[in-house]
Amino acid sequence: MSQPQSRRELARLITRIENGERGAQAALNELYKRTGRARVIGITGAPGSGKSSLVAELIKDLRSQPAPPQVAVVAVDPSSPFSGGAILGDRIRMRDLFGDPGVFIRSMASRGELGGIASATADVVSVLDAYGFDVIIIETVGAGQLEVDVARIAQTVIVVEAPGSGDEVQAVKAGILEIADVVVVNKADRDGVAQTIAALRSALDPSANGSGHHAAERPDVQQEADLAHPVHVWHIPIIKASALNHEGIDAVLIALEQHAEYLAESGEAERRRLQRIESDIQARLRELLLKRAMQRIPPDEYRRLLAASVLRNIHPAEAAESLLESLQS
Amino acid sequence: MSQPQSRRELARLITRIENGERGAQAALNELYKRTGRARVIGITGAPGSGKSSLVAELIKDLRSQPAPPQVAVVAVDPSSPFSGGAILGDRIRMRDLFGDPGVFIRSMASRGELGGIASATADVVSVLDAYGFDVIIIETVGAGQLEVDVARIAQTVIVVEAPGSGDEVQAVKAGILEIADVVVVNKADRDGVAQTIAALRSALDPSANGSGHHAAERPDVQQEADLAHPVHVWHIPIIKASALNHEGIDAVLIALEQHAEYLAESGEAERRRLQRIESDIQARLRELLLKRAMQRIPPDEYRRLLAASVLRNIHPAEAAESLLESLQS
Repeated sequence: MSQPQSRRELARLITRIENGERGAQAALNELYKRTGRARVIGITGAPGSGKSSLVAELIKDLRSQPAPPQVAVVAVDPSSPFSGGAILGDRIRMRDLFGDPGVFIRSMASRGELGGIASATADVVSVLDAYGFDVIIIETVGAGQLEVDVARIAQTVIVVEAPGSGDEVQAVKAGILEIADVVVVNKADRDGVAQTIAALRSALDPSANGSGHHAAERPDVQQEADLAHPVHVWHIPIIKASALNHEGIDAVLIALEQHAEYLAESGEAERRRLQRIESDIQARLRELLLKRAMQRIPPDEYRRLLAASVLRNIHPAEAAESLLESLQS
Repeated sequence: MSQPQSRRELARLITRIENGERGAQAALNELYKRTGRARVIGITGAPGSGKSSLVAELIKDLRSQPAPPQVAVVAVDPSSPFSGGAILGDRIRMRDLFGDPGVFIRSMASRGELGGIASATADVVSVLDAYGFDVIIIETVGAGQLEVDVARIAQTVIVVEAPGSGDEVQAVKAGILEIADVVVVNKADRDGVAQTIAALRSALDPSANGSGHHAAERPDVQQEADLAHPVHVWHIPIIKASALNHEGIDAVLIALEQHAEYLAESGEAERRRLQRIESDIQARLRELLLKRAMQRIPPDEYRRLLAASVLRNIHPAEAAESLLESLQS
């Protein structure tokens, strides 16, 4: 199983995972042992921040290296041109990438039940990892809790912000800045960059929001100096970039290298992994328990409690408690 | 309990619900019987579509009626000036409303575990309903599945779209157009309105996406004619408005009346309620089952399986299956 598989086979397995086919789980269990080698990067930010263009430029640079890594993109962002979510999307910029055999792009349906997307994305990342992709980029729209959960699958999370209206920071509004390891101010050729950087710096400042170890003391990445020393404390860098003009892309790649080093040296990689696996197991157990319970609850009792709740005689929470009790008797 | 309670008491109960206090559930169970009278309206749309301004204008008109209804707003949108999510938000436009004793505004924290927000919002709506509010408006940012779930608490969902870049429709991208009962194109004084309406019409067109009963045959609300006849099929109206200039607000209010009539006449209100209550009960049962399971699983077994999964020896799904088995033995 460890020899490279065809792209067609890979795409088929991913589709089976998305569809929740039972046989897919057996394949996942089998290949899980071969995961853990890939570098997984999450990129999130509001629609319009230019995440997809940034991803495209990062991939171009990665693929121009002397020993170019195999790169996969998992687009969970419905507004991404990668995901095909745009009605008449301009995927022109992506054409170069689509023609490169070392780049695999896959979009994930962002519909379906809550939580299911995060766990399906984790499974797709595992498959790509086992299939030998060196770098896996998860692109998700930065809009709330679901996106936070998807981004957390990554080892390093880049939050992208575009210069906007005054002091407002989209990433703060959406509650995603708190998971940033690296912040990129894209479209840095536009007006208002200084204001956006100042707003981001103040949002990341520990004296402003009381989070001690997520300080942003340095506005930009110090390139050579940091690579020479082990990093035990991470200062979230704010990097100016312009995907359009291919500016700042090298600084982002350096920040990614530095963060990988920090994760390895500090033990943070293991802590994050433990946390993620635990919440994944619990989410799956929750579903299994409900499924089993629904088979065991007498249908009449279920219908009776549902009707009572619809008629406002009992609160849904009471109905759920009664269903739990009916399982214990 | 049925006499009007003080705002302070109300605010305190809502805080207890948000914090998940155990005593709050007893209060919810008690007041649940007194719910079902309020008109619940969901308003969703991308940040920048002007949802909050539209809400403000709708409330002004409602409160200017001869027998003004008591109105409550539940803001789940982190970008809403109602929710206070903006860093230096301009809440100037909201000042009039804050001074009106017939209007109650409450923001909900949008963090926390998945699914918890939808169920907490449903509970807050129940409280407001039982406390005698006639109209309850839920404002949520239109960005994905979570927002869809929150909006579904409402009887009628308004999706707000602003004229944008070309043929792109934010509501389609985010997957929220599919839950629209009424579509409002706000900021209709801006360029590109016709293009946005055309894009929305084509997205809502049954011949384009195969959904038979959600046709948008009429671009605007036909005012008097429809109110005279019972409505059994709902044609999603696309209404041009400008909250800034207070234009189209009356047409939105008429569409809301028409949709209420449709819900009552068609039996759709009961169908939606049944569906929502069932998924609420199942979500709560899922949590109760996990909690009970975590108390019953031997801690050593839990730690062993978690470690095996972290070390990639077994997939989290296998770990969850094993935990389920350990409960059955």
